[in-house]
Amino acid sequence: MRIAIDAMGGDHAPEAPVKGALKALEIFKDVQITLVGDEAKIKPYLPEGTAITILHTDEQITSEDEPVKAARRKKKASMVLAAQEVKEGRADACISAGNTGALMAAGLFTVGRIKGVDRPALSPTLPTADGQGFLLLDVGANMDAKPEHLLQYAIIGSTYAQQVRGIASPRVGLLNVGTESEKGNALYKAAFNLLEQAPIHFVGNVEGRDLLNSVADVVVCDGFSGNVVLKTIEGTALTVMSMLKEQLTATTISKLAAAVLKPRLKGLKTKLDYSEYGGAGLFGLAAPVIKAHGSSDEHAIFSAIRQTKTMVEKEVVVIIERKMKEIENSLKEEL
Amino acid sequence: MRIAIDAMGGDHAPEAPVKGALKALEIFKDVQITLVGDEAKIKPYLPEGTAITILHTDEQITSEDEPVKAARRKKKASMVLAAQEVKEGRADACISAGNTGALMAAGLFTVGRIKGVDRPALSPTLPTADGQGFLLLDVGANMDAKPEHLLQYAIIGSTYAQQVRGIASPRVGLLNVGTESEKGNALYKAAFNLLEQAPIHFVGNVEGRDLLNSVADVVVCDGFSGNVVLKTIEGTALTVMSMLKEQLTATTISKLAAAVLKPRLKGLKTKLDYSEYGGAGLFGLAAPVIKAHGSSDEHAIFSAIRQTKTMVEKEVVVIIERKMKEIENSLKEEL
Repeated sequence: MRIAIDAMGGDHAPEAPVKGALKALEIFKDVQITLVGDEAKIKPYLPEGTAITILHTDEQITSEDEPVKAARRKKKASMVLAAQEVKEGRADACISAGNTGALMAAGLFTVGRIKGVDRPALSPTLPTADGQGFLLLDVGANMDAKPEHLLQYAIIGSTYAQQVRGIASPRVGLLNVGTESEKGNALYKAAFNLLEQAPIHFVGNVEGRDLLNSVADVVVCDGFSGNVVLKTIEGTALTVMSMLKEQLTATTISKLAAAVLKPRLKGLKTKLDYSEYGGAGLFGLAAPVIKAHGSSDEHAIFSAIRQTKTMVEKEVVVIIERKMKEIENSLKEEL
Repeated sequence: MRIAIDAMGGDHAPEAPVKGALKALEIFKDVQITLVGDEAKIKPYLPEGTAITILHTDEQITSEDEPVKAARRKKKASMVLAAQEVKEGRADACISAGNTGALMAAGLFTVGRIKGVDRPALSPTLPTADGQGFLLLDVGANMDAKPEHLLQYAIIGSTYAQQVRGIASPRVGLLNVGTESEKGNALYKAAFNLLEQAPIHFVGNVEGRDLLNSVADVVVCDGFSGNVVLKTIEGTALTVMSMLKEQLTATTISKLAAAVLKPRLKGLKTKLDYSEYGGAGLFGLAAPVIKAHGSSDEHAIFSAIRQTKTMVEKEVVVIIERKMKEIENSLKEEL
């Protein structure tokens, strides 16, 4: 299989994408890689004779670019060309650590949607206390979700968790303000009814306070709430950690004790780090398009490549498309 | 002034409400208190000759009761009678640590709304890293908010922060998925435009990741998102703290170091504890109705009484009503 990687996206580009790609080539013998970006900037990180294809372009989309406009106008941007490689069948999937909104737009315009999926979902895997992690979708691809979009997210997320994360019967929860079935606003009440009927292992409503306690393998929500939840988790964890640090360095004695604890505190940080889980999927597109975190290092890019490889191998897109068709047919039969 | 307190609400009732009331009586010479609940259960905590009024009732609403039904049918419940005291002018405000939904319903049915406020908001003050805290509203009184509700929350929250928390020009932020003005779903885009015109110090959109960093004094959102944010903050903070504890007790050496750090870690917990900030207001009702946390101890009840006293003294309700009228008039002039 071939994966196209935007070599210019992210805070540590092109070094992190190039080195992550090299690591993947070393370990996965069946993966070929096309690096898309400025050849002169990529080459210094490539050892002589590496079996990697470079697709050269000068143009790139920055984090300051207005996403949709940039994806439309910068037709030669590394991110857009990576998506183009997928569209034209020269690559099976693509990865970028660049501008999230622009990647969503490029994915939608260039790669297109799976038949039966109205709106793709941005889907990161977040860390949990037990190290298992959970898939949260949507975290911002679609701001004004309808109940049927949440149903589609549930099918998509369940399929991904099954195929890529190897969970036999993924527990799918609906984000809500309480666990009782009648909770929530109009959108969530309607979505609950749809999820109850869906061919998934629906475990009902889940609350924000239980997300990090592995209450579900897949948590479904609208893009507004999901984005708010994602950033609230990040912000709260960072704030608690920095308040902790402040306390630990307050006195000489506490500094000494903190020094002893350093490796253990580092262990905590690692547990909360989600680069291990790969990038956020743009699920619902006609091929795997993965958004690696903007701060991705070489290891995070490697994780994203491993994740993308599994998505291609397990034919996640094909399975989602088949399931969407089945649901459509069963709805037709009911009418 | 007189404050009616539901003596039977909360995990530590009636002890915590009664003792919190006694402490308030000792410190605030101008406050009189009516304790509503089972006289036989209240009396053991009252020293002989205490100047406190007991309004006896056998009935109470539990946390298992369906909120709206209970508030309608249990007409003699301690919480409902406390609200009744306010309605009939025998008390200026009321407090309960009981069933949140039932208190909202009792407040709405019995105390009623401020003229010009369509929907009351449940409004807790959450802790921030710098100890200042911020008011978040709504966290669940109104699941399907409209843009004009968010405008009303902004006015209400700003008035409260000014009058009760003594912030001269409270910074009001709109919860959103990014700081740019055009961010969010249809509800939030429309609300942004209304807040820009409002007679408040609007600081624009704020993100979940910045909430605990004092990005605003008042954060406005719909009840669904607010409830999710509240519980996500709680859950994330608790999870990080318990992961920390796990790391600190992993080895003998880390246990020793952790023992040295104990007072400092306790300091961190105190900073994250929001009982200091009083209870959550049911703002928009025609009199102060305060929901103390279910796990409130005597100190948390005392804080809620202090907060309620200030709301009465500063005539927060009267000021909100006046502001709502001004906005209505200015809208009429524009037409």
